[in-house]
Amino acid sequence: MVYRELLQEGEKIILVVVDGLGGLPVLGSFTELELANLPNLNSLAKRFPVGALESVGAGITPGSGPAHLSLFGYDPLKYRIGRGILEALGLDMEIREGYVAIRCNFATLKDGVIVDRRAGRISTEENRRIVEKLKKINKVEDVEVIWESGKEHRFVMVLRGEGLSEEILETDPGREGERPLDPEPLEASAEKTSRILKKILEISREILKDEERGNFFLMRGYAKLPKIEKFEEKWGLRAFGTASYPMYRGLAKLVGMYVPKDTPDFEAELAELEKNFDNYDFFYIHYKDADKAGEDGDWRKKVLALERFDSYIPRILKLGGIVAITGDHNTPSLLRSHSWHYVPLLITSLKAGVPTAWSFTEREAIKGSLGIRKSYELIPLLLASANRLKRFGA
Amino acid sequence: MVYRELLQEGEKIILVVVDGLGGLPVLGSFTELELANLPNLNSLAKRFPVGALESVGAGITPGSGPAHLSLFGYDPLKYRIGRGILEALGLDMEIREGYVAIRCNFATLKDGVIVDRRAGRISTEENRRIVEKLKKINKVEDVEVIWESGKEHRFVMVLRGEGLSEEILETDPGREGERPLDPEPLEASAEKTSRILKKILEISREILKDEERGNFFLMRGYAKLPKIEKFEEKWGLRAFGTASYPMYRGLAKLVGMYVPKDTPDFEAELAELEKNFDNYDFFYIHYKDADKAGEDGDWRKKVLALERFDSYIPRILKLGGIVAITGDHNTPSLLRSHSWHYVPLLITSLKAGVPTAWSFTEREAIKGSLGIRKSYELIPLLLASANRLKRFGA
Repeated sequence: MVYRELLQEGEKIILVVVDGLGGLPVLGSFTELELANLPNLNSLAKRFPVGALESVGAGITPGSGPAHLSLFGYDPLKYRIGRGILEALGLDMEIREGYVAIRCNFATLKDGVIVDRRAGRISTEENRRIVEKLKKINKVEDVEVIWESGKEHRFVMVLRGEGLSEEILETDPGREGERPLDPEPLEASAEKTSRILKKILEISREILKDEERGNFFLMRGYAKLPKIEKFEEKWGLRAFGTASYPMYRGLAKLVGMYVPKDTPDFEAELAELEKNFDNYDFFYIHYKDADKAGEDGDWRKKVLALERFDSYIPRILKLGGIVAITGDHNTPSLLRSHSWHYVPLLITSLKAGVPTAWSFTEREAIKGSLGIRKSYELIPLLLASANRLKRFGA
Repeated sequence: MVYRELLQEGEKIILVVVDGLGGLPVLGSFTELELANLPNLNSLAKRFPVGALESVGAGITPGSGPAHLSLFGYDPLKYRIGRGILEALGLDMEIREGYVAIRCNFATLKDGVIVDRRAGRISTEENRRIVEKLKKINKVEDVEVIWESGKEHRFVMVLRGEGLSEEILETDPGREGERPLDPEPLEASAEKTSRILKKILEISREILKDEERGNFFLMRGYAKLPKIEKFEEKWGLRAFGTASYPMYRGLAKLVGMYVPKDTPDFEAELAELEKNFDNYDFFYIHYKDADKAGEDGDWRKKVLALERFDSYIPRILKLGGIVAITGDHNTPSLLRSHSWHYVPLLITSLKAGVPTAWSFTEREAIKGSLGIRKSYELIPLLLASANRLKRFGA
């Protein structure tokens, strides 16, 4: 796009992502944002412009990966991040270009046939114990093999090396009573990867043979990093990102942001933001609790999560710079899940537009002067408001 | 696009462009449009539909060139008009397909090295005197050379002839203490143009050698007209355009509108519009003062400019036809420059949509029934409202 030609230095920008921000009416009439007591957000909404964002497209409920990419200014339909990568990021594994990440499930075989595709949903502790045994396989040919336990029967394997491919047949036949498939290459360039995976399976079978449940595992969601332009190159912003959950930290790292360690909660994230404020131009900070409450279908808990978030606002504003407050997607308690609806947006600058709202709610947001835009248009709006975009044409 | 298939005869259309129309809150609360006393505009806004336009894209502040192209129905990202062309249009020079227009600066050389890239910002009078001397160079090979003074150290050179190219190295090294670069060809087809420019520089050096300041000049922004479909072919409208500033007249000519001479102010433009009303289908008229006041950062002056504009409305309405009132972009006094924000729009026809507003302001515009659209979608809306578009499909 034309933006790169127009970049110049300007003010600092803070992007506050309230995960699962917006909702739908509960009690038949009001949303969580309308029910919550949000003195700071509502005061900002009266004084500054609001609007609404859509991550992907009409009716499309985004996962955290596409939703965040969109907020970072990447069209999520152009940059698709494979499931293996997202799982690996969620376990805080390091992923670089060329690596292949694979979602694995422990399974139970009997006479070579799958009798349980999830190994009886073994406990996370059991999982850790068995994965520890698999870690003996740390290199095959010139390729390093990294293992990381997930929850219950799930774990992730990452291959690091040259000439790897994600074009491999998934080994899960999708139902019990069948034999696992072999990780055959789906294109000629995948032969090396296929050979290595077969070798890994062969050794694993031997290592796991005495396990009652989880004496084998199935592989799917093979994924490499998509080729993605770094955030700093794309938008001319030295970027900092902080989140308490590994997946969001991983997404920030994926686009090249600096991400500090040891941020177990929002309080810690905020402390890191404050500490690093002089050294970057752009700051992404992630608030998780609204989403969790929405996923639980607990609107009271979501109201409380939003109220807790509201209490942090003065501390964020104190830093200076232009602050955008929005969500990666809505998580209405009514749906107990992410949703496709327009996400409320607020930008704390009168340069961004005229104020139009009386409160920070879904109903006010969609009528706001920032309009209804794709999430990946937010960064340009923020750049403009921070005086970071030159005029286009004379 | 599909529009061409659907064109038919219909009513006349007047497009009134209030340059720099919209703004941002001044005094911390109201915009210039909200502060101004605009009885005619506000009455129209109550009776007719309003909406909002965006020239290019999120956060992109357009120059006058792209902003006008967009209003004339051309996507400004597809049709990029080079800097040389815009400068030439701004000096009322005639530009046709195949010509190359070049921005030039007088500079001061000493022993072949640039000691002042702007020749001490010589006066416009000095500039005229020196350019007069350069006009001796009026033909090199079969190519005509046209010179026109700008302000201070700036002027424009236009080459007219066959086989010319804009792919030439800019000669300004960008800093003092270096030698000017040679206008080398950047592709094989630019050799003729390069040769001619070198010849012009050689003769110029001799002509200018006794000048104390401005004994040489630097060249950049080489540009040819982009291939652009004429407005009449594209939209089936015999088009008239009038403006008091050369650049806007030039943009109207560029798309093939008939543009009368001698329109030093809005009063004169309006008189020409009235005189020519029977002979065309489409009329573009340009009001400059709101933009000037905004660029000066003077909201009181902008309020007065808007009020003066308002007083002309009855005279415009009297003509008949459908009138659209909008801007090419906003120029908020707060920013002292063009801006990227949605531009208010009003169409004086109930066929265009339902009325929704109480006044003609930014806040009302973005909630209007015409929606928020790209500026280049306005002409189709006007065609439809003027009964000039047939049904698409059966």
